[in-house]
Amino acid sequence: MTLVVGGNPIEDVGTRHLANLLRNLRHEAVIALHSALNLITSNKFKKARKVFEHALNLDPSNSEILVEYGQFLEYHHNDLINAEHYYTRALVKQPTNLRALELKKRTLPLVEEIDQKYFYFIDNILKEFYRIPDTNPYLRRAKRNAYYLHIYHSNGIEGNTLNLRETQYIIETHLAIGGKSLIEQQEVLGLDLALQYVNCTLVNRLGLITLEDILEIHRRVLGFVNPIEAGQLRKQQVYVGSFIPPIYNDLPEYLDDFLKWLNSLDDTRDLHAIELATIAHYKFVYIHPFIDGNGRTGRLLMNLILMKFGYPPVIIKKSERFIYYSHLKQANDGDIRPLIRFIAKCTERTLTELIQQSQTTKITRQDLRLNDDYDNGRNFIEERVIIIE
Amino acid sequence: MTLVVGGNPIEDVGTRHLANLLRNLRHEAVIALHSALNLITSNKFKKARKVFEHALNLDPSNSEILVEYGQFLEYHHNDLINAEHYYTRALVKQPTNLRALELKKRTLPLVEEIDQKYFYFIDNILKEFYRIPDTNPYLRRAKRNAYYLHIYHSNGIEGNTLNLRETQYIIETHLAIGGKSLIEQQEVLGLDLALQYVNCTLVNRLGLITLEDILEIHRRVLGFVNPIEAGQLRKQQVYVGSFIPPIYNDLPEYLDDFLKWLNSLDDTRDLHAIELATIAHYKFVYIHPFIDGNGRTGRLLMNLILMKFGYPPVIIKKSERFIYYSHLKQANDGDIRPLIRFIAKCTERTLTELIQQSQTTKITRQDLRLNDDYDNGRNFIEERVIIIE
Repeated sequence: MTLVVGGNPIEDVGTRHLANLLRNLRHEAVIALHSALNLITSNKFKKARKVFEHALNLDPSNSEILVEYGQFLEYHHNDLINAEHYYTRALVKQPTNLRALELKKRTLPLVEEIDQKYFYFIDNILKEFYRIPDTNPYLRRAKRNAYYLHIYHSNGIEGNTLNLRETQYIIETHLAIGGKSLIEQQEVLGLDLALQYVNCTLVNRLGLITLEDILEIHRRVLGFVNPIEAGQLRKQQVYVGSFIPPIYNDLPEYLDDFLKWLNSLDDTRDLHAIELATIAHYKFVYIHPFIDGNGRTGRLLMNLILMKFGYPPVIIKKSERFIYYSHLKQANDGDIRPLIRFIAKCTERTLTELIQQSQTTKITRQDLRLNDDYDNGRNFIEERVIIIE
Repeated sequence: MTLVVGGNPIEDVGTRHLANLLRNLRHEAVIALHSALNLITSNKFKKARKVFEHALNLDPSNSEILVEYGQFLEYHHNDLINAEHYYTRALVKQPTNLRALELKKRTLPLVEEIDQKYFYFIDNILKEFYRIPDTNPYLRRAKRNAYYLHIYHSNGIEGNTLNLRETQYIIETHLAIGGKSLIEQQEVLGLDLALQYVNCTLVNRLGLITLEDILEIHRRVLGFVNPIEAGQLRKQQVYVGSFIPPIYNDLPEYLDDFLKWLNSLDDTRDLHAIELATIAHYKFVYIHPFIDGNGRTGRLLMNLILMKFGYPPVIIKKSERFIYYSHLKQANDGDIRPLIRFIAKCTERTLTELIQQSQTTKITRQDLRLNDDYDNGRNFIEERVIIIE
């Protein structure tokens, strides 16, 4: 079945129907764009925004809409970062779009300045974090909690239904929770073992990050669930929603390029640690080297890099998984900076929480709720005040 | 600390004390031997047997006692097989013992004839077994039960406390049993995966048994419990009670020799399948190639060989584990035939049970109890009548 739109032969009724549908959607998107522009001239900005978003839903690849929406965000919402993101997306779709080129040329340096200032802001929080002595018992407790939270959230993002309390129970007792699937409980043991490996073996080791390191992380992540595939590159094609990762024959070459980039000072010298860690994470899940466990391994790799640069491991919350996915998709569509900013925000939050928890002598429910993950608030709160080393 | 008995320097008080203790034990053993011989002349055979066994407990390496006990068993209990076993043990301890040499020379051919007759007897049961059509639903049910039983007993021998019902529940549902250790439940998943691999991949494959096959079996047996060591030769010394397996540096050479022997028609042509399978099992657990899971892998290897020769996989029951261990120890002490006879008995029992269960239209509790493993009778009985494919 060949789908060619615009006068070329269309092979069957189903295809013709689909082509008509697409044409209609695109046409409707253009009408919506004009409607949005009219709303702006009538100063109806709130409604205009909704109509813009409707237009982009109808046709996400129309560079005209992307540019107009970017300008709208820049001038009427003062949102330079998102404006520049839409100019970039317009250029990905139509690299010769002169208006988009000009707009991007003007906004890019400003956005870069904002991003760098944010990194500088985070680095100051990091300095504050390092002023807390290692012997602070609240800091130790907070770090321990963060350990369980990483496992809970990283598994939760992949669909594991165990809550934080259950996750911690399994790690501490190695006893089973009746009626729950064994696989979910083995996933907890896997991340526990992999995190220990990252924390105790890899972080403090000098030298480059190797393929062997990545395979060893994965062997632990997936080993308890799938002893056959754990620590092995996949030997078949996988599909991640609409995204199709590289074919398995090419994996060694992709990974070789990836590790050369990751370990090369020339390529990565100018990147902030958060940028490097995020890009590495993205490149890794793009390659998707394994049959399963790529997300968890990729998040561990990201944290390994952050920790090697002196940052605490960051937690992406289960409740944020759809935002996280959408940023991964935006990276696929040509702009990785939304993902970098998202990880930066996670880093800021992780640092702030660790500092707050180290200063608190008595943690009240009210305080805790501020940092809560509403996906599973009850357990989060209770666990955090229960554990004292 | 050097321990040298018999006039040579003894280094400290503790050592001297130990040497005295050993000397006293040996002396007491000789007194017990004379006492046993006196009891025989007084026709007190039952008491004589007890005193012989006491003497052997005091000094298991006294070839005089071994020879006398062997003769006692031969003449007063008509037990040629065990008599010859004790002559053999005497020769292992003292290869130049002329009486033992003469006694063994006379009894060995007779014992070999008995053993061969037993194999012939089992092979006739095997023929009877093959007359049952594959379509017999009771046979299929019995085979399925045997599958769960293998996993239950093979794990149970290694100390797993899950009962047959729990074992089957885990295999069928992959749900966890609350409050029980996760590791024990993962051991069930491991043997399940390994058995499937043996049944579906290895049994019907032509060609030699390779090191890769053994590693792949082990990867499945231990993978769910220890993803790091699964499928890997051990990298450290292990100790099995008082037995010290080969040092890990020598494992590749030992395994190479083992596989050459196993796959060589010249060396194994004259062995009965049960002999070959048992010797392979013994050689394998002697080498002890893995940090853990050697027993389970060794039993799977034994069953793989039996199945390649058309035998059903045999089950060594959890309740028989101490007999099984003692036969393994006897093999270490130089006589593997008690272990071979034990496996032959397990084969006979497995065949007889499969035949009985295939003929039974209605299985009563009374019938079932005959085949029961009293270690866990209740579950055994109930499970066997529950499952129908």
